[in-house]
Amino acid sequence: MGVVPGPELLARARLLVAPELSPSLVREVERITGRGAEPLADEMPGDGPLLCVGAALPGPVRAAERLVWFHSVNAGTDPLLAAGPWPAGALLTRTVGRMGERIAQYVVGWVLAECQAVPEYAAQHARAEWRRLPTELVAGQTALVYGTGRIGGAVAGLLRSCGVRTVGVGRTAGSGTPPVGVDRMPSGFDRMPSGFDRVIGADAEAEAEELAGARWVVGALPLTGATEGFFGAGRFAAVRGATFVNVGRGATVDLAALEDALRGGGVRRAVLDVLAREPAAPDDPVWRLPRTVITSHSAGITADEDVAQDFAACWEAVREGRRPGLAVDVGRGY
Amino acid sequence: MGVVPGPELLARARLLVAPELSPSLVREVERITGRGAEPLADEMPGDGPLLCVGAALPGPVRAAERLVWFHSVNAGTDPLLAAGPWPAGALLTRTVGRMGERIAQYVVGWVLAECQAVPEYAAQHARAEWRRLPTELVAGQTALVYGTGRIGGAVAGLLRSCGVRTVGVGRTAGSGTPPVGVDRMPSGFDRMPSGFDRVIGADAEAEAEELAGARWVVGALPLTGATEGFFGAGRFAAVRGATFVNVGRGATVDLAALEDALRGGGVRRAVLDVLAREPAAPDDPVWRLPRTVITSHSAGITADEDVAQDFAACWEAVREGRRPGLAVDVGRGY
Repeated sequence: MGVVPGPELLARARLLVAPELSPSLVREVERITGRGAEPLADEMPGDGPLLCVGAALPGPVRAAERLVWFHSVNAGTDPLLAAGPWPAGALLTRTVGRMGERIAQYVVGWVLAECQAVPEYAAQHARAEWRRLPTELVAGQTALVYGTGRIGGAVAGLLRSCGVRTVGVGRTAGSGTPPVGVDRMPSGFDRMPSGFDRVIGADAEAEAEELAGARWVVGALPLTGATEGFFGAGRFAAVRGATFVNVGRGATVDLAALEDALRGGGVRRAVLDVLAREPAAPDDPVWRLPRTVITSHSAGITADEDVAQDFAACWEAVREGRRPGLAVDVGRGY
Repeated sequence: MGVVPGPELLARARLLVAPELSPSLVREVERITGRGAEPLADEMPGDGPLLCVGAALPGPVRAAERLVWFHSVNAGTDPLLAAGPWPAGALLTRTVGRMGERIAQYVVGWVLAECQAVPEYAAQHARAEWRRLPTELVAGQTALVYGTGRIGGAVAGLLRSCGVRTVGVGRTAGSGTPPVGVDRMPSGFDRMPSGFDRVIGADAEAEAEELAGARWVVGALPLTGATEGFFGAGRFAAVRGATFVNVGRGATVDLAALEDALRGGGVRRAVLDVLAREPAAPDDPVWRLPRTVITSHSAGITADEDVAQDFAACWEAVREGRRPGLAVDVGRGY
């Protein structure tokens, strides 16, 4: 789980910041920690414990057994964890910022844009054509949101503001947690995630029923061993005309299975913010998926102020000997 | 104001329905009123009081002094009132249905689509181009909503769910109501319309300030003598980069003034659901307004179930001798 560094270790820790951090963000991190920053690189300065802020952990730092705390400027920490075994005992925290809010607005923006035929009206306008196109009232429709954490909860909450019935799907099959029963919370959650009208377990009988009735299927899953290829032929076969929106991780989707479902009509449209291989090259076949839009991993950007704010909150918790709310369970992967 | 017909008159009234009503809607209206329907046309059947359901009032029916109640299948009754003096004493009611909800989703759909660069991403996808485009978090931005009734209130409520600060502008200058002070309710409202963080009067000093700070300006005004050309050079001059969305009536906008503001950059973009002349012909210069999309009066469609439900509510009120909540003040025009 990573150990919260004690006051003595924290006081002695050198602050290393990744070169991609903006000067103003570096100043803010220096202000919060009360020490000067040194560059996070393959070459390490002097000796003593290390506190790092960045996106990636250089191999030598990972191997040196000096890391006590790494704060990720991103929400998704799977690249960090996939690059090698996590240093024993090192605390890993992450930036969520207003990401839940941003991703929720992305999802609802694309959902309502489809309901309001935004691209079609834009095209029709260019032809100077007056014609009422069919539109949809999203209120009363059902959305399945995979992932019931901060991101999934924020997405569901905003969808529910629009009158959408929201069903959360928690915990993945194969994660070691047995499928949970209808309308019961998946184990590991100690409260009902806000924003959901109902929460079910993946692979529960209820999932197939809900997939068949859903107008929207939203992926907001982290990438872990259990979620790779999670959206595959089996799940897509249960979909009856829903639009699939993925704001989680690209590798959670089996693209060949998605293509089959799009061609067969089970999946109505797809909006993919993330892909397993990013950026997609111009000749990548993913651009030729029918009725699909790819949005270049833009849904959940983090701003400097998000990083500074979340790091400050973690710093305060650590100083008080508490485990930060933004700490990552490195075994579970999120 | 129109008189609520008493039980004796109501019992004797013939039911006339416009030819454009669907057979199933006619059956529903017959069921509600407990009588058979006759066609609403220039030629009137027999004698006795008339209860009509439709969109327009034929001249002879208007002149015959037999009309006791007209239920409009539309929310906007300005074409009905503009076609001639309203028959003395006749009650006019209208269909609002889920129009507030529909129009709110239209506005938020176009607002978020702009924030998420939906048309730009669609175009970029067609070129197989991976590039992160600037997007906006709508939370924290300000929207001015003109019209604080059911429609404006629903629009503001949904915008506020997205974290937008909503300012309602009530009552129009020249309507006989003096401009109201900052943060006070315009007279004529007996409660704070829901969905608004603040309500100001048109032509108050606060209006110009709010226009300058707004990211979104939404028109949801009915067409009355006081609102024709309401959005003109004066108001547009106060706008500093807001997008203008009109879901009220087309004639409330001075298109020449809007064009100047678009060309000058004061107005960032325009989304026009309604025009003074509809449908717009292919050679109408309105199609050539810069950075504008016209959506063919699609935002607030009413479905048969909306008409049936609202008419049933009016019927119940009238039967009990109450003035229906959907009654139109024919002097005021809405």
